Amino acid sequence: MSHNTFGHLFRVTTWGESHGPALGCVVDGCPPGVRFKLGDIQAELDRRRPGQSRFVTQRREPDQVRILSGVLEDGDELVTTGTPVSMMIENVDQRSKDYGEIARQYRPGHADYAYDVKYGIRDYRGGGRSSARETAARVAAGALARKVVPGLVVRGALVGMGTKSINRANWNWNFVEDAENPFFTPDPESVATFTEYLDGIRKDGSSVGALIEIVAEGVPAGLGAPVYAKLDQDICSNLMSINAVKGVEIGDGFETARMTGEENADEMRIGNDGNPVFLSNHAGGILGGISTGQPVIARFAVKPTSSILTPRQSIDKDGNNVDVRTKGRHDPCVGIRAVPIGEAMVACAIADHYLRHRGQTGRIA
Amino acid sequence: MSHNTFGHLFRVTTWGESHGPALGCVVDGCPPGVRFKLGDIQAELDRRRPGQSRFVTQRREPDQVRILSGVLEDGDELVTTGTPVSMMIENVDQRSKDYGEIARQYRPGHADYAYDVKYGIRDYRGGGRSSARETAARVAAGALARKVVPGLVVRGALVGMGTKSINRANWNWNFVEDAENPFFTPDPESVATFTEYLDGIRKDGSSVGALIEIVAEGVPAGLGAPVYAKLDQDICSNLMSINAVKGVEIGDGFETARMTGEENADEMRIGNDGNPVFLSNHAGGILGGISTGQPVIARFAVKPTSSILTPRQSIDKDGNNVDVRTKGRHDPCVGIRAVPIGEAMVACAIADHYLRHRGQTGRIA
Amino acid sequence: MSHNTFGHLFRVTTWGESHGPALGCVVDGCPPGVRFKLGDIQAELDRRRPGQSRFVTQRREPDQVRILSGVLEDGDELVTTGTPVSMMIENVDQRSKDYGEIARQYRPGHADYAYDVKYGIRDYRGGGRSSARETAARVAAGALARKVVPGLVVRGALVGMGTKSINRANWNWNFVEDAENPFFTPDPESVATFTEYLDGIRKDGSSVGALIEIVAEGVPAGLGAPVYAKLDQDICSNLMSINAVKGVEIGDGFETARMTGEENADEMRIGNDGNPVFLSNHAGGILGGISTGQPVIARFAVKPTSSILTPRQSIDKDGNNVDVRTKGRHDPCVGIRAVPIGEAMVACAIADHYLRHRGQTGRIA
Amino acid sequence: MSHNTFGHLFRVTTWGESHGPALGCVVDGCPPGVRFKLGDIQAELDRRRPGQSRFVTQRREPDQVRILSGVLEDGDELVTTGTPVSMMIENVDQRSKDYGEIARQYRPGHADYAYDVKYGIRDYRGGGRSSARETAARVAAGALARKVVPGLVVRGALVGMGTKSINRANWNWNFVEDAENPFFTPDPESVATFTEYLDGIRKDGSSVGALIEIVAEGVPAGLGAPVYAKLDQDICSNLMSINAVKGVEIGDGFETARMTGEENADEMRIGNDGNPVFLSNHAGGILGGISTGQPVIARFAVKPTSSILTPRQSIDKDGNNVDVRTKGRHDPCVGIRAVPIGEAMVACAIADHYLRHRGQTGRIA
Repeated sequence: MSHNTFGHLFRVTTWGESHGPALGCVVDGCPPGVRFKLGDIQAELDRRRPGQSRFVTQRREPDQVRILSGVLEDGDELVTTGTPVSMMIENVDQRSKDYGEIARQYRPGHADYAYDVKYGIRDYRGGGRSSARETAARVAAGALARKVVPGLVVRGALVGMGTKSINRANWNWNFVEDAENPFFTPDPESVATFTEYLDGIRKDGSSVGALIEIVAEGVPAGLGAPVYAKLDQDICSNLMSINAVKGVEIGDGFETARMTGEENADEMRIGNDGNPVFLSNHAGGILGGISTGQPVIARFAVKPTSSILTPRQSIDKDGNNVDVRTKGRHDPCVGIRAVPIGEAMVACAIADHYLRHRGQTGRIA
Repeated sequence: MSHNTFGHLFRVTTWGESHGPALGCVVDGCPPGVRFKLGDIQAELDRRRPGQSRFVTQRREPDQVRILSGVLEDGDELVTTGTPVSMMIENVDQRSKDYGEIARQYRPGHADYAYDVKYGIRDYRGGGRSSARETAARVAAGALARKVVPGLVVRGALVGMGTKSINRANWNWNFVEDAENPFFTPDPESVATFTEYLDGIRKDGSSVGALIEIVAEGVPAGLGAPVYAKLDQDICSNLMSINAVKGVEIGDGFETARMTGEENADEMRIGNDGNPVFLSNHAGGILGGISTGQPVIARFAVKPTSSILTPRQSIDKDGNNVDVRTKGRHDPCVGIRAVPIGEAMVACAIADHYLRHRGQTGRIA
Repeated sequence: MSHNTFGHLFRVTTWGESHGPALGCVVDGCPPGVRFKLGDIQAELDRRRPGQSRFVTQRREPDQVRILSGVLEDGDELVTTGTPVSMMIENVDQRSKDYGEIARQYRPGHADYAYDVKYGIRDYRGGGRSSARETAARVAAGALARKVVPGLVVRGALVGMGTKSINRANWNWNFVEDAENPFFTPDPESVATFTEYLDGIRKDGSSVGALIEIVAEGVPAGLGAPVYAKLDQDICSNLMSINAVKGVEIGDGFETARMTGEENADEMRIGNDGNPVFLSNHAGGILGGISTGQPVIARFAVKPTSSILTPRQSIDKDGNNVDVRTKGRHDPCVGIRAVPIGEAMVACAIADHYLRHRGQTGRIA
Repeated sequence: MSHNTFGHLFRVTTWGESHGPALGCVVDGCPPGVRFKLGDIQAELDRRRPGQSRFVTQRREPDQVRILSGVLEDGDELVTTGTPVSMMIENVDQRSKDYGEIARQYRPGHADYAYDVKYGIRDYRGGGRSSARETAARVAAGALARKVVPGLVVRGALVGMGTKSINRANWNWNFVEDAENPFFTPDPESVATFTEYLDGIRKDGSSVGALIEIVAEGVPAGLGAPVYAKLDQDICSNLMSINAVKGVEIGDGFETARMTGEENADEMRIGNDGNPVFLSNHAGGILGGISTGQPVIARFAVKPTSSILTPRQSIDKDGNNVDVRTKGRHDPCVGIRAVPIGEAMVACAIADHYLRHRGQTGRIA
């Protein structure tokens, strides 16, 4: 697998498997002088951490991050030096015996078969490199990316789960992080609905997909480029790189295919303060690949995990037909924990473009 | 604008504006010994060419491609030498006076405002680098990419236009290229519907979005990687880099957010010939970022062009409120000509991953 | 041949063969608002141009550059827009019959044999992609790079030719560009020596190597990085990419292997103006990979061209022993014309690092 | 510091400072199925390890490598899976108090001043990222690179130290690794000379430069490219990225500047086995940027470390003139330990080009 790196000036390389001793990332190109606390990184990892409710995998991982390079201590803060920031998270609760019986079987919907064709060798324990544990490294990198762009706030929410959706009229960002909210939903009324629905899915040993929305505020106008380094392109690429994501869209997204030019284009006026004001945000904050200063809005679809209790037809490595039933410990809705991951990936894309824009044009400090 | 290059081993760099003397691309890393005819490239360009029906822009461009490097002649064929293939297309029908009156205005929905914030300087003639003319260079590169992977067939079709959709039961690939079909629709019955609908849009000076589907057959299993060089990620990134695209999806895409694990995962059996057979293709030919040997299926949404006759509220460069009405020559549905462009971008992604897979693993010739 | 691109933010891609219709480059990432005249680019090309004295190849090429994209006209100036700048130079005097007789022979010292092993196909006319004509594209790109860094002056000189060397005590930059100086030597007294020496070489149908020195003044302190993006590393990489270059060094270079720490390290004092002053420049303006503000000094060795009249033992494509005698039109000392090429490659490296430094640190405007 | 990564398909990212908790590397793109023992990696690290004779720094570091990802165990062997190989080495003997007194001083010849200008913040303990400890990570990566290319053997030797040189007539590769040889010299007779010379340097608190030669045998013909991905260019770039290297050359290198075409070009004949034979190797195994199948030969110059006991004039961060005397524990000749580092960097370049050649051309398995 070539190229486990993304970003150009804010570059993230991740490494590690589900059942190895550790996983981590190297963030190269972080500007010098960025101040943060170790707790800022840990807090993001805690949001993604498994085992926090009955709706996510029961694997118990403390996901404690260690920073091995690239920072100096200054009181209770850390300051980046401009050199590579290496972050490591040890795997604690591997329990690889869970996976023993399916070592030679290809689980339908998983990467097992494709992996074997590609590499001829496969770490069958927990999906190896395809495991969602890899995303912890992204969240750590994203926590640092958030500090790079002054004023940037990146938040995400689960807006759909299987056949159920939120009511957007109830959107409350504060509720997303509420301790009583195991779903990252912004709609308090949806909790009961999602709870009942997902309990049913979980008890059936089934799984279900989800729809996530990420909103980035404080993105300066001017990030991106007209064609191959479009800000929306790099955001979508980053989101598509998350396990189980099957679709991404910006602003009104797929809905724009059904719209007219009159309905779609956001009109502008000069505001009272003399600055441009957009009268709507169908574009999701990006026009022609370049940020406009409006909130950047992206959505992505997470498929249901293919690890389910219902036996499914498949084959094994030796060419036999088999029935596969995936026991182990799995998320009935992996999309829930995709919320902080999606935020991290969007933050990384924006931080990278912020540095690139500064590099090429010198038009922002 | 940094980085007008995409791909790693099959690398494409494009250049050129709508109203400059020419545009083109450099394809670097094309394997030596690839045989093709100049007509193969031209044929793809002709599919994308403007002025071929009343449903696309009336700009008259012959879009004749010249190959300036990287090939040797062998009879009526060209053979690549392994060095950069430079292709150039001259702009003939610029007619830049059309754009004179909006040189200082920001057209709503266009990149004008974002562009000025980013660069502080802007080629207002026809959108400059943001013009859809840039995509001719992609189509030329894609025509070469198609020759790199033995057996690869990449086809596309328009499956939705505004509020109208095709009937998938009527899908006929041959009809897509039919001379009587100005829409790249695979459904013969849809032609009348689309014609009437788009004539209405056109006469109103309006525009409408579209939904495009690309299907790649003959993709060897094993292309891609588990995380950051996922084949689906790079396909989506390539498609998102096309002007006016606001969303992309693979296989069942956004629909998977509403599905259960039982509905989504494609089951497998050993076929009569001893090879694996998938019983469905919800995954769109890619599992865990790696191709499975099934057809690769992607869809993307193209927003309506923002160039419409209805006056729209906007501002100008000097901070005045203005009403903008875009006359010029424009496509009422830019999504139609996006079909060959989408094919080209998918072909480039696959060719690149084919070479990368061969490089890392040596598992294909 | 993969990757005909160099640079990260100021990225140059070149294309074209000696005997194709044209060659050129695409400069991607050039900042917007850079002002220059077409004549600035042409002037650099004219310095590299063949046919200007009896000491360089008699091939007659006007090397007129056309700029096809990425600029707007403003009076008699051109202004970059931030989009890719495509530059093209047509080949006029190909005379490919010269090469006919050695189409199947491997010329000793040339890339012919290695090329055939690599690609299995080869443009034998004038070396194809290996031709020194490719360097015209670099000189064009370098002419633009010079404009990117305010105050940057990059100059080069030939300091050695075969067994003859200049006397550094006579160094005169103005003389390098003197019309009476066909060698880019900075030492007026060396002209007679070099003339007599090279006339002898030329009449014998032989060739000779050369040593070139490049000095870049006005390089801001802080460009580069401690390890893998060292400014000296990227300068050396750029110089090594020039045809026939076999060695590169920075500052005292190879001589430092023979020095002690006391002799090598440049001492510092606070100058009268309160700024740091270096008391010597053994380091060549770069410490730990980062520019210090002193002049950056690099030297490179150009081997003698292998195209000589003396018959040499070799083999042909069919496995026969043959004697090869290269007639054609060649430079008796290719190192002479390497002076402007070396300047261009150093300018490109500095421009790229200037943008990268601005991107990562924001510490220069 | 952006871009602590080198290589395209065999990509190495390193991280870590001299006085942080650890350092390491991530090797991305290593082919699957590469077999090795942990001891193979450790053996290379042991060759570079400090504290092994009085001629190198007395810092005591076990330099034990841990592999954290990308491999499966198979008996006493490890097998790569094709996913990123993360390797970590803990720092044990930091003793940062040694550096306390020069925290605000700029040591002449070191990166201190340039670093502060660039980043505005600096880890003064042991040079931070500029420390030669960083090279342990390269050696680990290089040990893996050696396994990627079948039949590849990369060896290095110290051929000059200060004013002393070896006698090439005595060259003995076996002696290089002899336990009685603290210098990696290939000339047994040179040991006495170097010992006496370096003892003198060491007792004076001085330091001295060195000249290193690397020879790679078993490099298949066809690796590299005619211009910007020249094998010699990438080898030189890799070598220049090593701390304190000031010059690099290939084959006859700088000597070619003084040669004629007749002296320089290597003649060829058909050998008894029908294969091409070169009659000399002035080219150092590379013609036109592409390997010929002959041994690849590179040399590089390492400057004397600037850490010496003699007081030197300098300035401090606050703008004062100071005299700097560097105590600490340092190598009197850092060039000695550069031998395994140089080998590692050459091995990485060759492994990368091997995969790139296979990717583009498919002409090697």
